[in-house]
Amino acid sequence: MRYEVPVQEILFVMQHIASFDQVTQLEQFRPAELDIEMAQAIIEESAKFFEDVVSPLNWVGDQQPAILKDGQVITTPGFKAAFDQFTAGGYQGLMHPVKFGGQGLPKVMNTAIQEMMHSANLSFSLCPMLTDGAIEALLTAANPMLQERYLPQMISGKWTGTMNLTEPQSGSDLSLVRTRAQPSSDGNYRIFGTKVYITYGDHDFTENIIHLVLARTPDAPAGIKGISLLMVPKFLVNEDGSLGKQNDVQCISLEHKLGIKASPTAVLQFGDQDGAIGYLIGEENRGLEYMFIMMNAARFQVGMQGIGLSERAYQKAVSYAKDRLQSRDLEGSEGPVAIINHPDIKRMLMTMRAKTEGARALAYLGAARFDLGEYATDPLIKKAHLSFYEFLIPIIKAFSTENAVDIASLGIQVHGGMGFIEETGAAQYYRDARILPIYEGTTAIQANDLIGRKTARDGGAVARSITRDILKTEQALANSASFAAKSMLRHLTSARLSFEQAIEFVTTHMTPEIKNVFAGSVPYLMMSGYTLAGWQMANALLKAEEHMAEDPSFYSAKVATAHFFAEHLLNQVPSMVSSIVEGGASVNALTQDQF
Amino acid sequence: MRYEVPVQEILFVMQHIASFDQVTQLEQFRPAELDIEMAQAIIEESAKFFEDVVSPLNWVGDQQPAILKDGQVITTPGFKAAFDQFTAGGYQGLMHPVKFGGQGLPKVMNTAIQEMMHSANLSFSLCPMLTDGAIEALLTAANPMLQERYLPQMISGKWTGTMNLTEPQSGSDLSLVRTRAQPSSDGNYRIFGTKVYITYGDHDFTENIIHLVLARTPDAPAGIKGISLLMVPKFLVNEDGSLGKQNDVQCISLEHKLGIKASPTAVLQFGDQDGAIGYLIGEENRGLEYMFIMMNAARFQVGMQGIGLSERAYQKAVSYAKDRLQSRDLEGSEGPVAIINHPDIKRMLMTMRAKTEGARALAYLGAARFDLGEYATDPLIKKAHLSFYEFLIPIIKAFSTENAVDIASLGIQVHGGMGFIEETGAAQYYRDARILPIYEGTTAIQANDLIGRKTARDGGAVARSITRDILKTEQALANSASFAAKSMLRHLTSARLSFEQAIEFVTTHMTPEIKNVFAGSVPYLMMSGYTLAGWQMANALLKAEEHMAEDPSFYSAKVATAHFFAEHLLNQVPSMVSSIVEGGASVNALTQDQF
Repeated sequence: MRYEVPVQEILFVMQHIASFDQVTQLEQFRPAELDIEMAQAIIEESAKFFEDVVSPLNWVGDQQPAILKDGQVITTPGFKAAFDQFTAGGYQGLMHPVKFGGQGLPKVMNTAIQEMMHSANLSFSLCPMLTDGAIEALLTAANPMLQERYLPQMISGKWTGTMNLTEPQSGSDLSLVRTRAQPSSDGNYRIFGTKVYITYGDHDFTENIIHLVLARTPDAPAGIKGISLLMVPKFLVNEDGSLGKQNDVQCISLEHKLGIKASPTAVLQFGDQDGAIGYLIGEENRGLEYMFIMMNAARFQVGMQGIGLSERAYQKAVSYAKDRLQSRDLEGSEGPVAIINHPDIKRMLMTMRAKTEGARALAYLGAARFDLGEYATDPLIKKAHLSFYEFLIPIIKAFSTENAVDIASLGIQVHGGMGFIEETGAAQYYRDARILPIYEGTTAIQANDLIGRKTARDGGAVARSITRDILKTEQALANSASFAAKSMLRHLTSARLSFEQAIEFVTTHMTPEIKNVFAGSVPYLMMSGYTLAGWQMANALLKAEEHMAEDPSFYSAKVATAHFFAEHLLNQVPSMVSSIVEGGASVNALTQDQF
Repeated sequence: MRYEVPVQEILFVMQHIASFDQVTQLEQFRPAELDIEMAQAIIEESAKFFEDVVSPLNWVGDQQPAILKDGQVITTPGFKAAFDQFTAGGYQGLMHPVKFGGQGLPKVMNTAIQEMMHSANLSFSLCPMLTDGAIEALLTAANPMLQERYLPQMISGKWTGTMNLTEPQSGSDLSLVRTRAQPSSDGNYRIFGTKVYITYGDHDFTENIIHLVLARTPDAPAGIKGISLLMVPKFLVNEDGSLGKQNDVQCISLEHKLGIKASPTAVLQFGDQDGAIGYLIGEENRGLEYMFIMMNAARFQVGMQGIGLSERAYQKAVSYAKDRLQSRDLEGSEGPVAIINHPDIKRMLMTMRAKTEGARALAYLGAARFDLGEYATDPLIKKAHLSFYEFLIPIIKAFSTENAVDIASLGIQVHGGMGFIEETGAAQYYRDARILPIYEGTTAIQANDLIGRKTARDGGAVARSITRDILKTEQALANSASFAAKSMLRHLTSARLSFEQAIEFVTTHMTPEIKNVFAGSVPYLMMSGYTLAGWQMANALLKAEEHMAEDPSFYSAKVATAHFFAEHLLNQVPSMVSSIVEGGASVNALTQDQF
């Protein structure tokens, strides 16, 4: 099945949910002279590349994963050529600074391109995604010399980047990092250690790879306050920018994974001989801080991976459901009908669709609020937007990816027995999706962030400001006479009240019963996700009713999908509140031996 | 990780949930002189075989699936030897009639053995499971000559059986079956056609395979009323019971599947030369009726597969969570602690545990009610038990298997990044689980059965009799002063009231708005599953409080798990009612083109 970029839906979300026009009017983006027509042109032009070139490689990559041969990773046939086209198209630099060769577009614009890239091919997209992370890190903290020497090559896509965090004993807990960074006489460092789960840790796309590595200097304090960030190029770079000798870093094995098989997941050995030459990024012992700045971007992108995969799994299931004839229509028919006519198939497709649209609305809104905050001149406006964005990050990451797993699973179910046969392709999405709630911080890590740093720390201030915004949408819904709007209003109000109850509990119970509060962290995150996505679906419903006459088929589908979201997803929020408010004790009741 | 049969838990459920003592006192089972001590001895003896022999082959089978070579299926190394031991142990015949060489044990006893077989190795267990189905079909409808010639060989495990329903155009919709059964001059039939998805359609375990095949005779009416059931042995059987020439049936390919890879899923070609010789089972055109009788048994067993897999995924996750050190304890600790101490890991493990225990309680209860009904002499008692059992079947099948997918997914999540690496083994459960809500009738098929035949058809009589039984449990809960019982009472009452509301809707709205009612069929099934499993967890809680002093560790864990079930699973039921009662219209709102 051919993946098709949902252009009209993306433009709807950009324009009516993410206030695209407000973003383009920012001082920062005036030079780009971007408007919604130009955005459409960019999206349509990009769509051709991702639909025709990148998307067909998705299945190929699953069948012919990257391999390690004589210490070198050889990627899936076709991937390098596609990456060359990606580079030629300037995609890596879309949102990076013009001064280093990027195009300086807003995040919300880039988000549209990210979505189609992830829909087309998760394994392929991981390479640019990790390079983005490395670019962000260098932009954040590298000295001007390093920036000038490395950033233009990375932003053009000529070199790629990696993130080296995890070690066998140090996964979610980075305080356990052991890799050593030994100062050397030339003023740089020698790196020794083993890093695991390094995405695109080696490959044959480009002539050089820039590894960013968390490590400890000899006198570093224990724990997370003693971690530094170092840059270790695969090939050393001479002063004139040409490549020198190979650095002391080797890919010693690739993991055999459940999914995203074309993406080489490397074990990297640093310093097997006399130490890999590394350059300090920023100051010693501040590595984790730099990591965190860039992690928001990476977490946002993994959220987009969830949305991209969800869209693709949905499209595939719809296509099968329209083709497959089986059983008569419940209201009577001559012979068997396309299964899309059966109510439970519709229920599954609507669930996939509504969750995807809800998560998409939230993510694009987040991207726009980042733009509006990051480039605001008024510090109060800046803070309002960025704190909203930061509240959203763990939700966008975890809610979209937990949904993606469910959506891919429903995608198989729609296919029936055919879904279990690998050749059908639905199973690949189910396998690929499963990493999304894990990497770049598991769902639990996101939930801890949301409930701790993002809710309890400010006494629920940001969370409550969101509930006030939801109330405004409720007021707008009350002005619509439609059945869908009335249903949405009822469910949105219940959800918001439940969310307020949860915020109250979280902000008042953290100290006396921290374990019971944290026992509800994931339910709190999922409740936030449903409530906020439902809120955005409510806004979408109102906009769709307003624009109905322009395209009744599109806008009535939007209203119906929002209506479905209210009655089948948002309606679950009130039940979640008891899990959070009362349920902590029963989570923590068993001793270790009783399991 | 070594799988261990949860002996104490199984015995608890048999004794305190499934009224095992009542079953053993039935006339039918008196000769077996079965009591709970003997049941324990059987379970412990069987546990050795499934833990030591069958379970270790689970991973081997995933890595070295069955292959097709020169028209013959060669199974995973070790599987044939294990099957020989299985046969020698008499496991195939445990619940089949003594007169054909079986042991005539109750279903509830057999259920315990099934559970451990499925936990040990789903791919292996499919062969005996399908043979059971074929045995049931022959017991139901074959003539005495065929029964005498075939049943002893199948019940001993010397020959195996298959079920041939599906064809490429005919999956859930059996009315589309095209395979032909042509009467021949010898009084038998010649079979022509292609059957797909035939589990263990060929293998090297045994010298013969008995295929049961749905086909149409030349003058059969169209649709499901024209389907006959035929028996087609791989090798013809001479009058003296010796094997004759090979029949005209061939395995032409094996499917490349997402999971249960060691189980050969065959495409069988019947009648490539002059027709496969087939023997009519029962009467012409009544094939589907015979199929349905036996389908209850098969659906029950797939439910047990869900429970078996859930138990195993749970055990593996617990084992990892106790070993893996990562991050400090939330309440403070010197260094990193085992992740089982982190609340969200506990929440995931408790979810896996509570869903597994709830589904198990319901399934064993169902098995016991089958025994109590099937072998009752009083027709009213018989009807009461069997109609309860039949109501439970679609729930046991679909609820346990939908849970299994979620549990296997949580199992990966508990492992973090390690879960995504195939060698860890958690991913295999996630892949294997995905077929369970599909085969032997998808979740939608089960839900249609539950909402149509099992609820609407009798005006909700059986469903309402269950709510009255739930009320009795509520009354018993009201007599307990414990915090857990009070919480359970509150949630069970809400769930029961919601369930009653749904029953009322289903029984009164079927005619005016059939598509809107069926749009809620899966939510209705899941609601029934949570309510009924929660009810059994409530009964378990009461029994555990009663027996607390005998083994405080075990019984307090049972109380805590029931408490968790109430606050984190049963609490979701009230939100489901709106999806069912109001939600149909938004499911069906979009036209085909709008998707």
